[in-house]
Amino acid sequence: MAASTHNQNRSWTLKERPPGLVGPEHFNWVTSPMPEPGPGQILVKSLYFSCDPTQRGWLHAEGGYIAPVAIGEAMRAGGVGQVVASNAPGFEPGDLIQGTLAWSDFVVVTPGAGLTPVTKVSKDYPLTWNFSVFGLTTLTAYFGLLHTGEMKAGDVVLVSGAAGATGSVVGQIAKIKGASKVIGIAGGAEKCRWLVEEGGFDAAIDYKTDDIALKIKEHAPQGVDVFFDNVGGDCLDAALMNLKAGSRVVICGGISTGYASWSAPEGPKNYMNLILHGAAMKGFLVLHFMAEFGKAMAEIGQWVREGKLKVKETVVEGLENAPAALQGLFTGKNLGKMIIKVADPL
Amino acid sequence: MAASTHNQNRSWTLKERPPGLVGPEHFNWVTSPMPEPGPGQILVKSLYFSCDPTQRGWLHAEGGYIAPVAIGEAMRAGGVGQVVASNAPGFEPGDLIQGTLAWSDFVVVTPGAGLTPVTKVSKDYPLTWNFSVFGLTTLTAYFGLLHTGEMKAGDVVLVSGAAGATGSVVGQIAKIKGASKVIGIAGGAEKCRWLVEEGGFDAAIDYKTDDIALKIKEHAPQGVDVFFDNVGGDCLDAALMNLKAGSRVVICGGISTGYASWSAPEGPKNYMNLILHGAAMKGFLVLHFMAEFGKAMAEIGQWVREGKLKVKETVVEGLENAPAALQGLFTGKNLGKMIIKVADPL
Repeated sequence: MAASTHNQNRSWTLKERPPGLVGPEHFNWVTSPMPEPGPGQILVKSLYFSCDPTQRGWLHAEGGYIAPVAIGEAMRAGGVGQVVASNAPGFEPGDLIQGTLAWSDFVVVTPGAGLTPVTKVSKDYPLTWNFSVFGLTTLTAYFGLLHTGEMKAGDVVLVSGAAGATGSVVGQIAKIKGASKVIGIAGGAEKCRWLVEEGGFDAAIDYKTDDIALKIKEHAPQGVDVFFDNVGGDCLDAALMNLKAGSRVVICGGISTGYASWSAPEGPKNYMNLILHGAAMKGFLVLHFMAEFGKAMAEIGQWVREGKLKVKETVVEGLENAPAALQGLFTGKNLGKMIIKVADPL
Repeated sequence: MAASTHNQNRSWTLKERPPGLVGPEHFNWVTSPMPEPGPGQILVKSLYFSCDPTQRGWLHAEGGYIAPVAIGEAMRAGGVGQVVASNAPGFEPGDLIQGTLAWSDFVVVTPGAGLTPVTKVSKDYPLTWNFSVFGLTTLTAYFGLLHTGEMKAGDVVLVSGAAGATGSVVGQIAKIKGASKVIGIAGGAEKCRWLVEEGGFDAAIDYKTDDIALKIKEHAPQGVDVFFDNVGGDCLDAALMNLKAGSRVVICGGISTGYASWSAPEGPKNYMNLILHGAAMKGFLVLHFMAEFGKAMAEIGQWVREGKLKVKETVVEGLENAPAALQGLFTGKNLGKMIIKVADPL
């Protein structure tokens, strides 16, 4: 079989559950014999991994919407790989697939038995687009803004974590759908420049140097209709001071909390402003909209082909850098979708 | 004129803006000459005052949905009074009216020019019913539960501040509308006893002695569909640990914060649970539903006449006790609607 030239498999396994910010110190870099696929299984060579904030949640002992990663287990990640050996019908060596893989050079997968299905991927576009353009972060932006946030043409839309994988797409979809103004909050001059000059945002607020609440008021004196929050903390409290009547605050994430636990270190102090404005703070998981993924992807693909939607990627090279890349999500190292490149396809 | 037998008018005026819990020390007990109604005005003798958490908000310098009470001004309150002299068409001495009055034995009012209209009240039911049965707290319960909370038959409903004016009505309306289970959170054994034995609640949780989150889980193992929150703080965080998919958290108030400012000392740490459950936290002001007040009052009146809805009152006697009564709202002194009785009608 194709993998026979490799005798060793390198992996990052979970050493201990991180109490706060996740980092390389919470994983072990281990080398083990090449795994063998059993009946109905395939051996997959890892090519790319997606970095997602939700991975941090998988490290909590108490679990969440899926089971936690076990101590000693290779870290779970959404990935694209290439089949090198197959005992499963419908999969041949050389096939490019995506699904839930693990931080290993090679991984054995049972199609149809995992957390997400293993599906073959198209060769019509770059492999990384499976995470960026057609990944869950883009779908999260789409459904969070249009369904949960009920965005309508003419709305003033505010986005935190605006230079991130989800935020950068939220802003662009808002413009495509006729928002009267789209304001992004991001960290640092380079990200803010990207938002306005390339990302299509009307205005950018640098949370590292600006008074966030004051700047929101300056850009949206009548308040915002939709606030799409990826960050929590000060960004959320500042937005809650600038709501319009009947506005929607979409809680997508709280990256500023580092996802150190299921509860934030501090909740939004200004949540009672929801009362004055008859506003709603709404949570959602993109999985709630799974039945509509196909339709959304068709629309998203069309926007990308027409050049209306630019999906930005930050690619970190090397499996050995996987834990640092994941940590980088929480410390603002990425512009757009954070991706780990492990290998090129054969 | 009828008031000529009185030479003096006693009032509680605002001495200073309370930094935290409001109390008698923030008001001055002053005696001034009897006021005289000008053209288009009426002189009203105060009979009853409503005590409402929203009054605390009127003491913030920065204002809110209405202008703040000024330092030196008599404290504003919803009240029922009797006209003792009138220069306004349509009002005669002896008429019983309600509107925004002030903590004074006598107050001059300009019908049609105040914050709320001055309206004549019915003699068909006790005067206090204008605050309890037909007051804003009952309407708040009605619209908050049925409109903002979108309560449907079969829902599991949780209410904090359940022995208060709004909470006690929320629980009863939930039962009337077919909730499968109604759980109340209140402070102390006597209130909890009232909830279950007289208030029609299925279960009561004593936040002073119980582990709130654990008890909610015990009474609602599948989670709650609607949480109606009058309290904030620990109650809100405990409820956020017990949400059902698609559930609604109605933010009506945050009495545990003392309304010391427009922001709470601590926000809900568990707000990100809204994500996992695709849940919404929704604020509202009863004034948003003003157009539907008449219809709601007709339905509420019917329930009261049929004995389905029991509206509880706590009446404090004497204008001199007004500040203490208001403070009592924030320290849990009331069962049902807190009312101050100043005088009987002539």
